[in-house]
Amino acid sequence: MRRSAVLLPALCILLSSSAQQPEQQSLLGFTPASARAELDLEKRFQAIPDPARMRSNMELLAARPHHVGSPYDKQNSEWILAQYKQWGWDAHIETFDVLFPTPKTRQLEMGSFHAKLEEPTLAVDPTSGQKDEQLPTYNAYSPDGDVTAPLVYVNYGVVEDYEQLQRYGISVKGAIVIARYGQSWRGIKPKLAAEHGAIGCLIYSDPADDGYAQDAVFPEGPMRPKDGVQRGSVLDAPLYPGDPLTPGIGATPDAKRLKIEDAKSLPKIPVLPISYADAQPLLAALQGPVAPGNWRGALPLTYRIGPSNERVHLKLAFNWDLKPVRDVIATMRGTDEPDVWVMRANHYDGWVNGAEDPISGQVALLEEARALGQLAHQGWKPKRTIIYMSWDGEEPMLLGSTEWAEQHADELRRHAAIYINSDTNERGYLNAEGSHTLEPLVNQVARSIEDPETKATVWQRWQAADLVLGNAQSRKDATARGDLRIGALGSGSDYSAFIDHLGVASLDVSYGGEDDGGIYHSIYDDFYWYTHFADTTFVYGRALAQTDGTLVLRMAQADLLPYDFTSLADTLRAYTGELKSLLEARRAEAAERKSALELDAYELTNDPRHPRVAPPALATPPFLNFAPLDNALAALDKAAAHYGKARKAATEKPLAPGALKAINDELVQAERKLLSPEGLPRRPWMENLIYAPGWYTGYGAKTLPGPREAIEERRYADADVEIARVAHVLDDEAAYVEHVAAELDSAAGAPPTASSGR
Amino acid sequence: MRRSAVLLPALCILLSSSAQQPEQQSLLGFTPASARAELDLEKRFQAIPDPARMRSNMELLAARPHHVGSPYDKQNSEWILAQYKQWGWDAHIETFDVLFPTPKTRQLEMGSFHAKLEEPTLAVDPTSGQKDEQLPTYNAYSPDGDVTAPLVYVNYGVVEDYEQLQRYGISVKGAIVIARYGQSWRGIKPKLAAEHGAIGCLIYSDPADDGYAQDAVFPEGPMRPKDGVQRGSVLDAPLYPGDPLTPGIGATPDAKRLKIEDAKSLPKIPVLPISYADAQPLLAALQGPVAPGNWRGALPLTYRIGPSNERVHLKLAFNWDLKPVRDVIATMRGTDEPDVWVMRANHYDGWVNGAEDPISGQVALLEEARALGQLAHQGWKPKRTIIYMSWDGEEPMLLGSTEWAEQHADELRRHAAIYINSDTNERGYLNAEGSHTLEPLVNQVARSIEDPETKATVWQRWQAADLVLGNAQSRKDATARGDLRIGALGSGSDYSAFIDHLGVASLDVSYGGEDDGGIYHSIYDDFYWYTHFADTTFVYGRALAQTDGTLVLRMAQADLLPYDFTSLADTLRAYTGELKSLLEARRAEAAERKSALELDAYELTNDPRHPRVAPPALATPPFLNFAPLDNALAALDKAAAHYGKARKAATEKPLAPGALKAINDELVQAERKLLSPEGLPRRPWMENLIYAPGWYTGYGAKTLPGPREAIEERRYADADVEIARVAHVLDDEAAYVEHVAAELDSAAGAPPTASSGR
Repeated sequence: MRRSAVLLPALCILLSSSAQQPEQQSLLGFTPASARAELDLEKRFQAIPDPARMRSNMELLAARPHHVGSPYDKQNSEWILAQYKQWGWDAHIETFDVLFPTPKTRQLEMGSFHAKLEEPTLAVDPTSGQKDEQLPTYNAYSPDGDVTAPLVYVNYGVVEDYEQLQRYGISVKGAIVIARYGQSWRGIKPKLAAEHGAIGCLIYSDPADDGYAQDAVFPEGPMRPKDGVQRGSVLDAPLYPGDPLTPGIGATPDAKRLKIEDAKSLPKIPVLPISYADAQPLLAALQGPVAPGNWRGALPLTYRIGPSNERVHLKLAFNWDLKPVRDVIATMRGTDEPDVWVMRANHYDGWVNGAEDPISGQVALLEEARALGQLAHQGWKPKRTIIYMSWDGEEPMLLGSTEWAEQHADELRRHAAIYINSDTNERGYLNAEGSHTLEPLVNQVARSIEDPETKATVWQRWQAADLVLGNAQSRKDATARGDLRIGALGSGSDYSAFIDHLGVASLDVSYGGEDDGGIYHSIYDDFYWYTHFADTTFVYGRALAQTDGTLVLRMAQADLLPYDFTSLADTLRAYTGELKSLLEARRAEAAERKSALELDAYELTNDPRHPRVAPPALATPPFLNFAPLDNALAALDKAAAHYGKARKAATEKPLAPGALKAINDELVQAERKLLSPEGLPRRPWMENLIYAPGWYTGYGAKTLPGPREAIEERRYADADVEIARVAHVLDDEAAYVEHVAAELDSAAGAPPTASSGR
Repeated sequence: MRRSAVLLPALCILLSSSAQQPEQQSLLGFTPASARAELDLEKRFQAIPDPARMRSNMELLAARPHHVGSPYDKQNSEWILAQYKQWGWDAHIETFDVLFPTPKTRQLEMGSFHAKLEEPTLAVDPTSGQKDEQLPTYNAYSPDGDVTAPLVYVNYGVVEDYEQLQRYGISVKGAIVIARYGQSWRGIKPKLAAEHGAIGCLIYSDPADDGYAQDAVFPEGPMRPKDGVQRGSVLDAPLYPGDPLTPGIGATPDAKRLKIEDAKSLPKIPVLPISYADAQPLLAALQGPVAPGNWRGALPLTYRIGPSNERVHLKLAFNWDLKPVRDVIATMRGTDEPDVWVMRANHYDGWVNGAEDPISGQVALLEEARALGQLAHQGWKPKRTIIYMSWDGEEPMLLGSTEWAEQHADELRRHAAIYINSDTNERGYLNAEGSHTLEPLVNQVARSIEDPETKATVWQRWQAADLVLGNAQSRKDATARGDLRIGALGSGSDYSAFIDHLGVASLDVSYGGEDDGGIYHSIYDDFYWYTHFADTTFVYGRALAQTDGTLVLRMAQADLLPYDFTSLADTLRAYTGELKSLLEARRAEAAERKSALELDAYELTNDPRHPRVAPPALATPPFLNFAPLDNALAALDKAAAHYGKARKAATEKPLAPGALKAINDELVQAERKLLSPEGLPRRPWMENLIYAPGWYTGYGAKTLPGPREAIEERRYADADVEIARVAHVLDDEAAYVEHVAAELDSAAGAPPTASSGR
């Protein structure tokens, strides 16, 4: 009965749909009285973000090309700074000097065919003709090069594709490869091509993936027109993001810089993105075997692997200049716990006009900042320090965020309680990925935000998507579990330095899933496209501002920081299960391969008119010692349960002011325990042993990356070592959570053991 | 030691690779002495079939269009008859008069677009210009019609596609549908379209399925050129094949014929096949939602579902004439058991020149007949009667075979021990489908045939294909089981009357899997195509003749007919497991659907710009009584084991002549026990309760079709009834096998129980 008295009318309305989950009706980390105040504050906050302002701000910020080093990028930074200041924030710009190459020469030929390498102006689209300011189509950080070689098609150019190539007996050694965009982060394509001996790499957008196969093309529809090209960085993001010349340190004017030839994140071979109009004659010229079914795109030709009889000539040269990136940093100091930082960011640089990427997210962030400023103007002050950041230089490889995070690493390690990122935003479903200590918080916030299209909560819509659009596991989890699962973070936006390098509990949040588009990183990602084909009324911009702003407020205002360790333990147990299944799958695969080789099954299925090569024998995996990991998980389960009871006891009654300050300081460090200062194998910058971008996927996360990638790559001896390393940090995490839980027992009053229910 | 003495040198060579399976080294159903003679005979037989003759016979038989009722079809029948006679067979032609419509009017328009409906002559291809004799492109048995309506795209036009259409809220009622060829037998497409209210049906060949996406098109490559069209019948084959006017009886001149309007196997709406050149403007004119990913073909356009704004006009009229079909029947009377018939057939009619379909199979069959004639000329005589049949009228719907089988039904029920069918043949792997009582025989024969490309046995290649190209279950079975699994027979060639209607143990045998082609049922299926892109040296034609001829000889010569009931029982247990899994899948699906509907998940995932309709609730299946079936399987297991022991005892020593004649007469009837005279629900002609063509798949077999289709279609009350019916015939089968085993115990000498090892 005391519980239900907590509910305000607003809460009753917003949470009416989750009445079947009564445990969700109290706010995580809040006492009943604090929850009442918080819900009132959130209601006031959520009323402020304004779609009309988002629209006009997008029109302004996307009015001209605004890539790193461009005049309009600088102008935007100054305008954003002025906004923060006008809204009462303590704001400034921090500048770093980063390597950012731009094209001098781009040339691609085969015989008489000369690739156009140019996106045409469209009469209907007012900004598409700003040719003087547009960056040409290119992949940033490709080395200079002048190569001539036969062409080989490698599908998406991912690991499995090279395994297929081996079966066809086709090598890319000395060849130029042509890969299609998709299925991996683009930088993986030249990385794998170079590892296999290729001397150049083309990446094209197949119409099957974001062109006419999906829907009408721009400007009639949202998809990629035949001459549209996806620009983008090809740095080795899974190695380290940020300025390639200053790994681990801020790229300040006096920073010690690597020589370009020593920068390990730079790709090894020249690489150029092209349109499908430019790709079609090249693909049509390929000889050799017909590509397998899942390699075929939507061009009206027979996809062949190659090589081509005619050789392709690719010539690229770049200006290898340092350019400034200007991060706009805005702070609202906390009253009670100013040294606990709640951080929220979105980048503002684009490849060209960048309306969707990133202005759709930036305008939501700015509306949050304006709303918080307005609340502050009305007298409210945050308990903890809130920092809003508008990053520059995300596109070339998370430059602004990474350099800033490296520069402020010590402070961040001490103070950062959460980093909430966004980037692009569209219509559709809430998509939150990040630290699983934040999973219950995200679920609770999602239950309080209204979906613009259905007027249900965004949590209900998220659940519905899991039920209707999800895989078997998602469909099951959608009703079997109180909370919906959030995904893990890989790479692809500015959270990387925070979660991977510094161990700050992080989230990446967006809405999407309803708007298809083929304008990504092209000149057509502009105000015209966005206001015709995406979140045209900016109501999902408002939902993003409401969601992320509410997350910020919960983190800033909670009596006890709303982390949860049971969700972390549950997720880690699922990941460990995946590792075990993966190992068993590797074992079965090796046995099956062995049997097929012994029975000459590959020779016997070798069609002389379509010859294939037998795949190699696979080492049978040893049995790995998962016991340390299982023991660590058991300890973490126990600690998490203890913490959960202690939290309940600590927040079910009013507290003395400042009673939990010391606990909160300790809680901020809990996520840091997931780091190892030695980092991951092959990549010491990546210190998080739980989450990382995949070495061969990039965007795609690898959880428990040490053991997982070792098993995937059949480095079984490494796997045993890496399992033990993960177990070690989880043992530390469990001990730390036990310690905090015990502190919390004490803080919540005597007798601790009784109030915690033990 | 006695065993190894059985082995002749020939056997040692041919079977050397199967040395790890010593139980295979005795011949099923043969005593050691008989096996020696049989292997010697087979060796002589297998040396005779001659690729050069197959080539010249194909050149002759495919020299001109030879469809039902054409002059060259008649000429071919007479030539084939003369061959059989020349080789010493007692041969004759039996003629039936069947309904066979041919086009008078074919017209398809949309606005100013007029479909070409014509396959062009190719200069390089000498028979492609025989325009006077070619049947135009059409679907045989389409009703006359003149319809004008909007067009809707239905993908392959199978059940799942209409479930998708419902989600899009699009009805085909009153529309003309356009479906692509593939995934079902073609007659299913107008059948389902009519059931959903469509008034016309177009079927086109998408280049994704057999056009340029797969390989270069004819004449540069083997695939379908843009104007190529697949002709074909659209009778309701799963209801009953054969002449639509004489179901169940032979279409003799004086047969009682249905009126056309009473013939239930005729389709309900006009239907026309078209090329992808003719389909492209129609598909490009479709409006409405973008088709889902797995609906998209390889044409360079955005596949939409429709409807079209403009209406399509389809006008068709046919000559509804009776035409003669001439079956060539050749008999070689058996010496010891003349009333046990070993039957072997392939049709000879084509849609146009039909080199691959069916002459590639017909020329193999003729070489078998020549070889057997030659052996007979040298003094050998079969123990049992061998009947070779060259069918006419297969293409319109198994007319020649079905009418003959219906006409001779009583004799066949008494005498037919096996029906071995073939049709088209290419390079690649042995593919045998049929009665599982014949599975060990097929495996044993496959171990004695040399693969032309690898010189391994075709069994080894078959195993290799299961290992390398098969699904998880095939990969497992390929090494875990002594015998490789044969598939079940659905429909699509002349075995249907034998297995489905009369319960004759049947096989359909071919080589294939290495040659892709897009000339099926077009004017380009001719000698030029076959000798450039398929089994160009006819070595797989020889392998087919060797395989099927050896099957014939084993069946004709064995002391004991080489059926096996353990393989039947094992297969039926697997099918029963599938039924149980299917029911549980239906249960899980219904529960999941219910949960999603209760949570409004379909409304909540409804994008207002891309509206969808919620699917209907699904009845939760009851728990069905599988006990009668499980009990019948247990009885069949026991009887099969008993029979196996009795067979071993009966064939491990020399026998008195004629000792097993009565047993063999009884064995012939064992397969008949799988029939029920009431037939399957909805289709009394289909009397086999174990095997049938699927009601909604056509070609695809449905095993245990009564209960399986009832569960698939959610007719759960029917399912319980049908499970009991299957159990009943299997109880009868088990009792019969027990009875034969006991007889065999007696025949094999005293004391039966001791010699059978019990």
